[in-house]
Amino acid sequence: MNILDIIIKKKNKKELTYEELFMAFNGYHKGEVKDYQMSSLLMAITINGMTLNETLSLTDIFIKSGNAYQFNKKVSDKHSTGGVGDSTTFIVAPIVASMNIPMAKMSGRSLGYTGGTIDKLESIPGYKTVLSEEEFYNQIDKIGLAVCSQSEMLVPLDKIIYALRDVSGTTESIPLIACSIMSKKIASGASYIVIDIKVGSGALIKTREEADLFASWVISIGNHYNKKVKTIITSMDEPLSSSIGNALEILEAIEVLKGKNNRLKEVSIEIASHIVSMAKGISVDDAKILSNNALKKGSAYKMFEKWITTQGGNLNAIKISNKVFSLKSNVTGMIKSISAINCAKLSLKLGAGKINKDDIIDHSVGIKLLHQVGDKINKDDILAEIYVKDFNLNLTEEDLKLFVIN
Amino acid sequence: MNILDIIIKKKNKKELTYEELFMAFNGYHKGEVKDYQMSSLLMAITINGMTLNETLSLTDIFIKSGNAYQFNKKVSDKHSTGGVGDSTTFIVAPIVASMNIPMAKMSGRSLGYTGGTIDKLESIPGYKTVLSEEEFYNQIDKIGLAVCSQSEMLVPLDKIIYALRDVSGTTESIPLIACSIMSKKIASGASYIVIDIKVGSGALIKTREEADLFASWVISIGNHYNKKVKTIITSMDEPLSSSIGNALEILEAIEVLKGKNNRLKEVSIEIASHIVSMAKGISVDDAKILSNNALKKGSAYKMFEKWITTQGGNLNAIKISNKVFSLKSNVTGMIKSISAINCAKLSLKLGAGKINKDDIIDHSVGIKLLHQVGDKINKDDILAEIYVKDFNLNLTEEDLKLFVIN
Repeated sequence: MNILDIIIKKKNKKELTYEELFMAFNGYHKGEVKDYQMSSLLMAITINGMTLNETLSLTDIFIKSGNAYQFNKKVSDKHSTGGVGDSTTFIVAPIVASMNIPMAKMSGRSLGYTGGTIDKLESIPGYKTVLSEEEFYNQIDKIGLAVCSQSEMLVPLDKIIYALRDVSGTTESIPLIACSIMSKKIASGASYIVIDIKVGSGALIKTREEADLFASWVISIGNHYNKKVKTIITSMDEPLSSSIGNALEILEAIEVLKGKNNRLKEVSIEIASHIVSMAKGISVDDAKILSNNALKKGSAYKMFEKWITTQGGNLNAIKISNKVFSLKSNVTGMIKSISAINCAKLSLKLGAGKINKDDIIDHSVGIKLLHQVGDKINKDDILAEIYVKDFNLNLTEEDLKLFVIN
Repeated sequence: MNILDIIIKKKNKKELTYEELFMAFNGYHKGEVKDYQMSSLLMAITINGMTLNETLSLTDIFIKSGNAYQFNKKVSDKHSTGGVGDSTTFIVAPIVASMNIPMAKMSGRSLGYTGGTIDKLESIPGYKTVLSEEEFYNQIDKIGLAVCSQSEMLVPLDKIIYALRDVSGTTESIPLIACSIMSKKIASGASYIVIDIKVGSGALIKTREEADLFASWVISIGNHYNKKVKTIITSMDEPLSSSIGNALEILEAIEVLKGKNNRLKEVSIEIASHIVSMAKGISVDDAKILSNNALKKGSAYKMFEKWITTQGGNLNAIKISNKVFSLKSNVTGMIKSISAINCAKLSLKLGAGKINKDDIIDHSVGIKLLHQVGDKINKDDILAEIYVKDFNLNLTEEDLKLFVIN
């Protein structure tokens, strides 16, 4: 067996053994298997799929490529497969931590339309996104909540495979997404994991059927490592919150922590309830009451402040652009839909995301949607506020097609 | 549309346009598209296939990547998709050239079990495999037959794509094989082309169905360029001739040119007849009579001598190893089969082929099969002569499993 035999075996829709997957992926990590061989294998996997056995094997190979974290207490973690306006982490983490369920989360930066969790946190001046292993462990012991950027040794194989998938057209593979996410969740030491699966035309996972399959796989992988895993499925046709952009999303999350009701709150409560249910061994309904109480009583917000302050952040110093223009409706009617993908594209154009690795994110720009689907709109009503760096941006009508009204 | 959109479109089983294929393949030629992107696209093509339209487009893009040859007269060419003991070129070319049908052939070296046509010709001391464009044209004008190695400017895009397919597990693709072969045949200027499609477990094309599909495609591609194309399908379960190895195959071809009857002769006559039929506008049956006559009368052999001599070769100087051992039967019975793939593997081990580009071919070694399928064999009968460099080769019983006798 050499790498070509392995590639051709997968091309021919045969199941690869642990040893064959190890030879290919570990070989790639060591530089023995070339980029063009791995991308060919990744495309064969993307088209022909992987069995659950193969996916378990590959997850294990991923995990063993780096260091695994271990905590004194059982900690929780959450992951979203990627959404527009998804700032649930900033709400879920304080809710559960306020109930003495630690959340130890290592997050990524996003290369795409909008910032990742770490980019969003960097819109809080002073927030330290890089923690040493010791600092990370200590903060969990001390306050039960820490969110930092992924260490270099957290599943290094995933990093290089992810980077290659990103440039070789092989991102849309359910088993590869499952390996990538679960290897990191397991290596980072969580015992209770909630995966929020985003489904929709703009998401990596397009259909409900794919989402169900993905859900069953991440649960199987988790069980294999004695982890409790719950999944929720969230539609990504519309943005999850009415704010899109880094600082804007942090501010929106703070509003929810202070009592605002919206879809962002609902999804956050759902994720938090599953974690609380698993950690405390209670029903999800009971956990939901506790989670809602944590918001109502202000204990979640208190925990949020403690967390951000402990990690050096100054909440009073968050800045959003003072250059804002209003997107007005030129018709009268009802909002039929709000396009998540178009909001994402616009926010990218504003500077809230990045296409190339060296692009610099502008944390102060973004979109604030003032209306929801179902709202009745008169001509000239303000639909959204667009926070820009300067007014010279060449925004076309196409760029501003966020709402469908009729 | 960027390269990722194109890769993903093919992954999703959509037909690519000429412009998209151009952007991908020409972009790769120019170094804009990376190895790992092209191998990913090649795997998507290998698994999901290409339509005839896509195949025509890609063939055209291949052709336009280099120079096209044009001759004063209409010339013929032949191609085999790769077989063990296939030395038909040395018989077909002189037959048709002896009837004033020029054959202008640019051949390759083989990276694999046995040598390619050019490697085999190099076993004739003095034979000049590299001809300038002018020398090539002049020799065709003068004697109507020339076989040289492919110029650097003959479909250079095919060279780099072929090299990448070879190391990325993407060789087994009917449309890519059709593009590769037909682009070179068309660019090298032939008007009458016979493609000998080898089918069998050891061949690139495994089944009769694939061979039929392949045949219809190469004919369609040829017609698109106003070329007459005929295909024949030859089983590659057994070696085509009883000699495998470079000098041995040249000597075997000479025996056929001098009158020997065997399967090599039959296949050569079939190929030659199709060329003669197309070139002279006569029936294949009539062409077969003419081709057989060219052998009988010695005019084909005379043409062969003229060709080799014109290109500098000295037929009297061909050397085969004087170290020969006999492979004897240890049973009594009938020969059920002779394994082409095992003969090929053994000849590679003897030094007749090469695995790596810098390996040096030993022209003097090889295998001479003394019996055919159906022959009755007594214990201790000599089945084959093995021509070796020295007797210290560590040949195992596995290596010598050429015959199945029972």
